[in-house]
Amino acid sequence: MSGKASAVRRISIFDTTLRDGEQAPGNAMLPEQKLELALAIEALGVDVIETGMPSSSASDYKATQIISEAMTTARIATLCRATREDVRLAIEAGGTRRHQVQILATGSETHLKHKRGITRAEAVHEVVDAIAYAKELGAHHVVLGIEDATRGSDALLRELVEESVAVGADHVGVADTTGCMIPREYGDLIGKLRSWVAPGVRVSTHCHEDLGLGLANTLAGIEAGADEVQTSLAGIGERAGNTSLEELIAVLVYKGELLGATTDVRPEGLYQAFETLRSTIALPVPRNKAIFGANAFATQAGIHQAGMLRAPITYEYIEPHRFGRERSILVGRHSGRAVLRHVMEEMGLEPDEELVGLVYEEHVANRSNGNCVDLAGVRELILDKRATARGGIR
Amino acid sequence: MSGKASAVRRISIFDTTLRDGEQAPGNAMLPEQKLELALAIEALGVDVIETGMPSSSASDYKATQIISEAMTTARIATLCRATREDVRLAIEAGGTRRHQVQILATGSETHLKHKRGITRAEAVHEVVDAIAYAKELGAHHVVLGIEDATRGSDALLRELVEESVAVGADHVGVADTTGCMIPREYGDLIGKLRSWVAPGVRVSTHCHEDLGLGLANTLAGIEAGADEVQTSLAGIGERAGNTSLEELIAVLVYKGELLGATTDVRPEGLYQAFETLRSTIALPVPRNKAIFGANAFATQAGIHQAGMLRAPITYEYIEPHRFGRERSILVGRHSGRAVLRHVMEEMGLEPDEELVGLVYEEHVANRSNGNCVDLAGVRELILDKRATARGGIR
Repeated sequence: MSGKASAVRRISIFDTTLRDGEQAPGNAMLPEQKLELALAIEALGVDVIETGMPSSSASDYKATQIISEAMTTARIATLCRATREDVRLAIEAGGTRRHQVQILATGSETHLKHKRGITRAEAVHEVVDAIAYAKELGAHHVVLGIEDATRGSDALLRELVEESVAVGADHVGVADTTGCMIPREYGDLIGKLRSWVAPGVRVSTHCHEDLGLGLANTLAGIEAGADEVQTSLAGIGERAGNTSLEELIAVLVYKGELLGATTDVRPEGLYQAFETLRSTIALPVPRNKAIFGANAFATQAGIHQAGMLRAPITYEYIEPHRFGRERSILVGRHSGRAVLRHVMEEMGLEPDEELVGLVYEEHVANRSNGNCVDLAGVRELILDKRATARGGIR
Repeated sequence: MSGKASAVRRISIFDTTLRDGEQAPGNAMLPEQKLELALAIEALGVDVIETGMPSSSASDYKATQIISEAMTTARIATLCRATREDVRLAIEAGGTRRHQVQILATGSETHLKHKRGITRAEAVHEVVDAIAYAKELGAHHVVLGIEDATRGSDALLRELVEESVAVGADHVGVADTTGCMIPREYGDLIGKLRSWVAPGVRVSTHCHEDLGLGLANTLAGIEAGADEVQTSLAGIGERAGNTSLEELIAVLVYKGELLGATTDVRPEGLYQAFETLRSTIALPVPRNKAIFGANAFATQAGIHQAGMLRAPITYEYIEPHRFGRERSILVGRHSGRAVLRHVMEEMGLEPDEELVGLVYEEHVANRSNGNCVDLAGVRELILDKRATARGGIR
């Protein structure tokens, strides 16, 4: 990573949940579902919401139309192939103002040869033509979106960038389409792109998690001068997905000063937006995943619980309530006696080590499966065992 | 991150699936289940397998015993609180040879005060005593495992390290217990620890994913001189989990040279080991997660598929077969006509754009849900539509 930025910059947050996220298997949404999510994401304070690729289907066209009409604070973005027809449809659906029209450039020799079967000159010509056309139609904000930029030669990237900026591109997006870079490489690439364009031209990141480094790459991009970063809720997207919005926001909330970066996104509503997404596309919830995972704020092991019961700060860095979540103390085979004593004290019972021992042996140490009970369940177990121990019926 | 290492070092891979992974809610395993997984993980070429905390339960004690007897290439590791009784039980269960006895140090002022209620002198004394005792019992490899090291003061960390090494600790483990650091911070910390001990003393990493940066932190640790790294299958572990073994291995396979690091772990068996884990603890499979996610090697969107059908390299950086997986082409609402033409050609049918159009309109563009069909399903749809279009009965 490059050195610490000298001043704190406000990073624009771009959400691709409804485009890269939605195009992955299992994630398709209806236009009305996209609208509901767009409103939830806008409410977080996200700056730009990508609605889809209007030329690809009537559904994406309509989603773009209704979302662009509904947004009051966020801008929208759309994705276009480098053709006049794609650009025309995108602008027809999403308008010319508060709309980032992204035009897809073929950004690597691999894609030129194996995907497109075109020459470098043809690739440059098609984006230049599409960008000029978007500007002619009155688009305020046109983005050169370089696909597979992380595998392209400097010569190809530089020609694409310089020719596009010359005809009016306002912004260059740098996609690590296959997720093939580590942070040092991606930071170097963003720094290089940044140096090729005037300060007024925006630079943005688009990273994938194929190596598990999408977020770290995005941070390297921020440190190297990116103005905007693309993320998605829960990281949904092609293959291993994109940089997770909630993780990026957590890093900016807690480490923004170190990174010289800040955001206006409010983390409190993130989990609720995720719940909407989860029910819309029937997304399985991972047990262990930052912020949104089932266990992200849950503790079972005695060695952690003894500390958590005294002070949550012992094992908690991210504060669950700031992200719309709650901490949970669960009792299972790895719990200790401390949590049982704690529950008994909360119930107003006298200290009773024999009872603690009985409950521990039967319901904790010799538990034969991975299930856990919450503290309400533990209260029940204690009352049961207490009644049995006294030979009475509860 | 620090500069590029001058020579390629072999990094020791330590797996904590059966300890940190197993102690998270929902993940409890029986000793025989741990043994089955330990054998699968050893078969990958992992260097060290942590079996549990023998003092915490009869189950962890037994798991340690049977795994230590079964391992032929991997070493085992156990976790002990800094007490003679914990150390005695660990060595009784796991022996003195090919066993990394990890003794837990209270590594931050926050833990001294809020978790333990002890002074710094007491924290130093208890680990020194436990380490000396482990050495007396004949343990070959004793590790000072510093809990919450990432929130501890330099003064506390340095005293713990120097006093422990003085009585024979062979190795220092540096835990980011709450997952509170970004790579630059964690790399700096590992570099500092490395500078406090002789080159013969090993240094290892233990990172959590609370900020989504566990893997990036681990890589920063490697670049700063760590000899060993702790990981778990699918990243299972406390809260957001630990660094994922499969992601770390993918990075070392593809980017080892850049990082100056290599490994002997063979990636081919990773997915099969994950399948064993998944069925053992009923782990939900995320849609988007590197290497193991349901969609990690699946493509549906037309814009990617057109390239994938020509040459997988267009959108594939990690090769699925090297990780025991297969790529899959799925057809859903975001697919295009190219995949339909491709399937028809494979079926030996004559080019028929009318048929392509009919199948596309009915089964692709106007699909009302997120479901996808595989290529076998697409063949069925084409045959059906062809029969109907001809007015015949198939």
